Amino acid sequence: MLGGREPEVYGIVTIQQINDALYQLAEKLGVEIDFFQSNHEGELVDKIQQSAEVFNGILINPAAYTHYSYALRDALAAAALPYVEVHLSNIYSREQFRQHSVTAALAEGLISGFGMNSYLLGLEALVKNLSGNNS
Amino acid sequence: MLGGREPEVYGIVTIQQINDALYQLAEKLGVEIDFFQSNHEGELVDKIQQSAEVFNGILINPAAYTHYSYALRDALAAAALPYVEVHLSNIYSREQFRQHSVTAALAEGLISGFGMNSYLLGLEALVKNLSGNNS
Amino acid sequence: MLGGREPEVYGIVTIQQINDALYQLAEKLGVEIDFFQSNHEGELVDKIQQSAEVFNGILINPAAYTHYSYALRDALAAAALPYVEVHLSNIYSREQFRQHSVTAALAEGLISGFGMNSYLLGLEALVKNLSGNNS
Amino acid sequence: MLGGREPEVYGIVTIQQINDALYQLAEKLGVEIDFFQSNHEGELVDKIQQSAEVFNGILINPAAYTHYSYALRDALAAAALPYVEVHLSNIYSREQFRQHSVTAALAEGLISGFGMNSYLLGLEALVKNLSGNNS
Amino acid sequence: MLGGREPEVYGIVTIQQINDALYQLAEKLGVEIDFFQSNHEGELVDKIQQSAEVFNGILINPAAYTHYSYALRDALAAAALPYVEVHLSNIYSREQFRQHSVTAALAEGLISGFGMNSYLLGLEALVKNLSGNNS
Amino acid sequence: MLGGREPEVYGIVTIQQINDALYQLAEKLGVEIDFFQSNHEGELVDKIQQSAEVFNGILINPAAYTHYSYALRDALAAAALPYVEVHLSNIYSREQFRQHSVTAALAEGLISGFGMNSYLLGLEALVKNLSGNNS
Amino acid sequence: MLGGREPEVYGIVTIQQINDALYQLAEKLGVEIDFFQSNHEGELVDKIQQSAEVFNGILINPAAYTHYSYALRDALAAAALPYVEVHLSNIYSREQFRQHSVTAALAEGLISGFGMNSYLLGLEALVKNLSGNNS
Amino acid sequence: MLGGREPEVYGIVTIQQINDALYQLAEKLGVEIDFFQSNHEGELVDKIQQSAEVFNGILINPAAYTHYSYALRDALAAAALPYVEVHLSNIYSREQFRQHSVTAALAEGLISGFGMNSYLLGLEALVKNLSGNNS
Amino acid sequence: MLGGREPEVYGIVTIQQINDALYQLAEKLGVEIDFFQSNHEGELVDKIQQSAEVFNGILINPAAYTHYSYALRDALAAAALPYVEVHLSNIYSREQFRQHSVTAALAEGLISGFGMNSYLLGLEALVKNLSGNNS
Amino acid sequence: MLGGREPEVYGIVTIQQINDALYQLAEKLGVEIDFFQSNHEGELVDKIQQSAEVFNGILINPAAYTHYSYALRDALAAAALPYVEVHLSNIYSREQFRQHSVTAALAEGLISGFGMNSYLLGLEALVKNLSGNNS
Amino acid sequence: MLGGREPEVYGIVTIQQINDALYQLAEKLGVEIDFFQSNHEGELVDKIQQSAEVFNGILINPAAYTHYSYALRDALAAAALPYVEVHLSNIYSREQFRQHSVTAALAEGLISGFGMNSYLLGLEALVKNLSGNNS
Amino acid sequence: MLGGREPEVYGIVTIQQINDALYQLAEKLGVEIDFFQSNHEGELVDKIQQSAEVFNGILINPAAYTHYSYALRDALAAAALPYVEVHLSNIYSREQFRQHSVTAALAEGLISGFGMNSYLLGLEALVKNLSGNNS
Repeated sequence: MLGGREPEVYGIVTIQQINDALYQLAEKLGVEIDFFQSNHEGELVDKIQQSAEVFNGILINPAAYTHYSYALRDALAAAALPYVEVHLSNIYSREQFRQHSVTAALAEGLISGFGMNSYLLGLEALVKNLSGNNS
Repeated sequence: MLGGREPEVYGIVTIQQINDALYQLAEKLGVEIDFFQSNHEGELVDKIQQSAEVFNGILINPAAYTHYSYALRDALAAAALPYVEVHLSNIYSREQFRQHSVTAALAEGLISGFGMNSYLLGLEALVKNLSGNNS
Repeated sequence: MLGGREPEVYGIVTIQQINDALYQLAEKLGVEIDFFQSNHEGELVDKIQQSAEVFNGILINPAAYTHYSYALRDALAAAALPYVEVHLSNIYSREQFRQHSVTAALAEGLISGFGMNSYLLGLEALVKNLSGNNS
Repeated sequence: MLGGREPEVYGIVTIQQINDALYQLAEKLGVEIDFFQSNHEGELVDKIQQSAEVFNGILINPAAYTHYSYALRDALAAAALPYVEVHLSNIYSREQFRQHSVTAALAEGLISGFGMNSYLLGLEALVKNLSGNNS
Repeated sequence: MLGGREPEVYGIVTIQQINDALYQLAEKLGVEIDFFQSNHEGELVDKIQQSAEVFNGILINPAAYTHYSYALRDALAAAALPYVEVHLSNIYSREQFRQHSVTAALAEGLISGFGMNSYLLGLEALVKNLSGNNS
Repeated sequence: MLGGREPEVYGIVTIQQINDALYQLAEKLGVEIDFFQSNHEGELVDKIQQSAEVFNGILINPAAYTHYSYALRDALAAAALPYVEVHLSNIYSREQFRQHSVTAALAEGLISGFGMNSYLLGLEALVKNLSGNNS
Repeated sequence: MLGGREPEVYGIVTIQQINDALYQLAEKLGVEIDFFQSNHEGELVDKIQQSAEVFNGILINPAAYTHYSYALRDALAAAALPYVEVHLSNIYSREQFRQHSVTAALAEGLISGFGMNSYLLGLEALVKNLSGNNS
Repeated sequence: MLGGREPEVYGIVTIQQINDALYQLAEKLGVEIDFFQSNHEGELVDKIQQSAEVFNGILINPAAYTHYSYALRDALAAAALPYVEVHLSNIYSREQFRQHSVTAALAEGLISGFGMNSYLLGLEALVKNLSGNNS
Repeated sequence: MLGGREPEVYGIVTIQQINDALYQLAEKLGVEIDFFQSNHEGELVDKIQQSAEVFNGILINPAAYTHYSYALRDALAAAALPYVEVHLSNIYSREQFRQHSVTAALAEGLISGFGMNSYLLGLEALVKNLSGNNS
Repeated sequence: MLGGREPEVYGIVTIQQINDALYQLAEKLGVEIDFFQSNHEGELVDKIQQSAEVFNGILINPAAYTHYSYALRDALAAAALPYVEVHLSNIYSREQFRQHSVTAALAEGLISGFGMNSYLLGLEALVKNLSGNNS
Repeated sequence: MLGGREPEVYGIVTIQQINDALYQLAEKLGVEIDFFQSNHEGELVDKIQQSAEVFNGILINPAAYTHYSYALRDALAAAALPYVEVHLSNIYSREQFRQHSVTAALAEGLISGFGMNSYLLGLEALVKNLSGNNS
Repeated sequence: MLGGREPEVYGIVTIQQINDALYQLAEKLGVEIDFFQSNHEGELVDKIQQSAEVFNGILINPAAYTHYSYALRDALAAAALPYVEVHLSNIYSREQFRQHSVTAALAEGLISGFGMNSYLLGLEALVKNLSGNNS
């Protein structure tokens, strides 16, 4: 499972804290996860392509790339894994350009606005979907 | 806590099943909830206005009203309770008009695309927010 | 069969006259119809939901709701009955906002501009469609 | 004369205070008024239709319905009474969507931004218009 | 009465079948009709101009020209005959560009989506209008 | 208090009549007013700048400048006086370009459509606002 | 010199009268002209292509084709003759779609709104341009 | 007759030359004209208002004001004189913003692209219109 | 195989040269081709309709019709033959209106900008597609 | 060198202070400058036209006219002097309408957001450009 | 010659197969090529900058970057080599955002929709252009 | 202080020359600067994040990334350092897409169009701002 890119500016939690919380939740849910963070669109694309054969799903916060990276979208489409898109802040309360996501259309679903909890709820949602529990 | 309006068309779960699952989760989370469903925009507005003095938060699926009901938006703003917006389907995979929500800007956050789980994750998120757990 | 909502302003015929003419035509065509009129979007939605199990088709004039009621659209989609959309006036000769119908995309077809005859032609079209006569 | 719909959020005056002030002014101006408030679009439409035969003019604050209710617009057009549209807040200082009114085009005029005074000035304007004093 | 242009792709009925059905209906309604089909915008314009002195009304399916032929629109305006616009398919269920008709604004009315029946209903509507039966 | 610019075309009242009626109303309300009229955007800007130190509020009909004069807007913002915007005609019943006001966003409020009464109601509204009577 | 296409609807003058007046003016100006009229876009394109070698300039009223015929525009560009575009009516006083001309950008100039005089003034302008008299 | 505003940049003719040519043509046509030039929108508005009682028509080149001066438009509408709008250059061959004229809709007609001849043809057209010669 | 319409203005090659080169290439590729050129949209539509039964594919340069001829698009769709769209010039380097093609969406593919070579490459591509060589 | 128009609202520096600082900098740079300020678009246009023969360059803050004054743009184009556009505030951090400048396209360059320093940097840039120092 | 970036998702051919086919074709055409593939926009920009001195032309499939990478566009413009843009799929049959290419305007030409053949045809076209064979 | 990214195409000065001139000016202004150049959006983002703790301000030329890199914008916002945006060319004289900057809104100010001088003026402006000299 691929963790997304996360800027330090969106709350007082650090990437490390989110990382730890996700690993704890993963253990509780009985799944294995791997975490990846990069500022480089190309590295995210590379990672997603490699994930296709290794993981069963992707939990991603595309941050600013949400709003224009068709490369990320195409990589996610090519990987053909179910993915859940999460955002720390509620993107609908912010600037106009943040209210359009080029990656959301192909996602299982989107969770936005709950700070670190967006990641945890996203992991929960993804695992439920992968186990067929989304009647 | 006010349950939203839900058409039967978006999955095999019935409103009753969502209702039951929400009550179970509420019990587990140690909160009391109340459920309300109506096809009438006016009744939803009335209910939200009454909620302001009775509840601590709102979990709402505004269904089709998501896309045009400024009356619902104003009622939610007037109630001045934190609320979480949920959708059964991923609204970003559907028709263009479904990709704009007039109510999302004032919400705590939005969860879209996980079927019945959208409600459960939404309740979880709302309760965490109300208890200050959203670092 | 559900009759639609009709404001008194669009011609000299009364709802009663349209009602009578529709019943006469229905008798001639050998079908049973039921008529419903309301100013309340929610009541129209309720009625459409109930129609799903009782009727084989819907003849509807959504009046002003034509232009913004996604709730009506979703109700019609959920009812999953073939429906014909009719308008007393030619909506293409009027204000810009009247030239977009949010309900027409899912209809069997649309008839607009023939006064009371829009209803009669619409009933004829609907009955022909239901009997498979639309080669 | 029909009073409009008013949410409690737009100032410290209550509907009751506006109601009282309007009755006082009406008495001073030598006119009789009636007051109606509802959160239900359909009830407002019903009330407007009934007003056509009982009143000489309408003073209306369509609140959130200002921005999308073509049903209200059509009802006002059908009633064929002169009406004045009022708003508590200055709708031009607020969100983009509040700056378009679907009902203003057919009104005698519009008064926006003066709190409770919007109603009082609106009643004054309407009575002057009805008495032909608008050279 | 001028029949319109019709591509063979929109159903299993041939132009000949529509032609026959229209002549039968015309006989039943006690009117005389003439039929014209062309792929050439200019020939349709010529025919419409000539119709002005010979016919009392026009039943037209402008096909693809519906969406851009201002020449056709001007010819129909110049002919100054009442006309009914028909479409085999429901143009509101198709590509975005098909949802705008440059000719509909000046028509008596529009009938769209009923296959061959669109023509028959259109003829019926036109004859009723010409005979003043459209209260 | 600065009177606005007024073209002679919008009614049978002359500027003189409006001027007189305003002075009468001012006297009745116990306030002093001054009147200024010009076709020159620059002179209106100059006058508004000078008003900042002399007057307590501005009553302005920006006429055609309503729709494009950012210079007027900036002058009104710089003057930092509360102002009320009035229009003789209902600008929402007219051409599309008249329905956008570049000056309304910063005004106390807007009154449109009541002929000479727009000025009188505007003065009343302004004086009430200045005296804190706008609960 | 190529005369354009002219519908009979835009005034009481006939094509014949315009034709006669143009021949008279041509004689007075000492130039030879030829006149062509067609409802067929293709025939106009053919004629314009043939004109390139025979005439020194083109006077054209593209009628409805003004607003969408890129084929006409390309033909005029290919002919590489100076041309003047004329319209009987003032196209800026009419429907929105008539206010855009796809052919005007490449013309010497445009004359619109003077009925038959548009043609006569256009011929005068074209002849002056061809003789270098347009300082 | 009011001459318009003219920048020196649009050709080698001076305002004086245009002025002289217009006076010569006026004499030939048997009409009296007066000429006015200003860079000041307000002075043009003043002049147009004064023209209403003195002249029978207006020949105007609104230059840059063509594209935004609703004040000029309102002044021309108020003057209620027939006017002809002229431009030295072909405004359809230039920047996008020059292709919209806020004053053309109310003009008798428009002549654009013929340098000094635009003025002369415009005077001719105006005089013909005033003498009823525009069949 | 239907050759398209080609204006003489887009290069120094003549239609004849393109024709010859295409016949040579066709011989080399072992296919038979037929060539058709017309300025008439209607003739192109007729030809395409007739091609459906005679040819296996279409190579078309719709020239100016590319940008607005929904009639051509519908004819190509009805013919149900694979087709390749070619352009002499690179349409993306030209006017804005040339950058939208109404026919490209249904084509096998598009080749633009290589002069006469666009035709030759297009024929090659079409033949490869028809022989299943497009892995 | 022409100083621009400056409203008092955009900082604590007065026009006098900017004036003084500019004269000091000019002396240091070895250039002579002249300063002009007006609220009147027409006076600014007059001044710019006169500058063409007297100055070598223009430093201008068009203030609100930045966003709509095509008259100013045309005057600057006609003067044919290099000019630098400056703004006290960062226009990209403000209202949407302030983010479009109709005058910037023809300027040497633009400096925005540095308060009084915008003028000083602008003078420096202009002098460097005039002396050919802008490799 | 620079090969472009290619995701594995657009067909059954692998990058290796395209690579091989291109080398074979290059040998047949008597040209030398080099191949480069990266998911990193920055690496593509670097490579293009380096190509300027080493290659005579560029064959590029910008994949998702086609739709937003102005960096790629600027790099291609700076390299000042003729380039041909190719796409595996027909971008005009896909999502709206894929129908705009920010790089196509500066290309020699574009080939879209022929799978691996797009590359081969593109190489052929590029070589012909470089050898002056594009009459 | 972080130098930005600079393509070689926008003038005859090399990055080295700009670099040298900036170091000279920095010495003269008594500040220390560091220079960074990369074609990689991710590396620029990394560098900006690292700058937050090391530098007091940023001088940046985001080149093509100006127009779409929300990642750069977010990095600059997160770094929370004052920054000045510079461009070699006047972006308002170029293609439409270059006239929107996604990074300018959060900058101290913007300087565009003065070649290498844009950098030098930008450094001067930034240092003045950091020292509080921007009254």
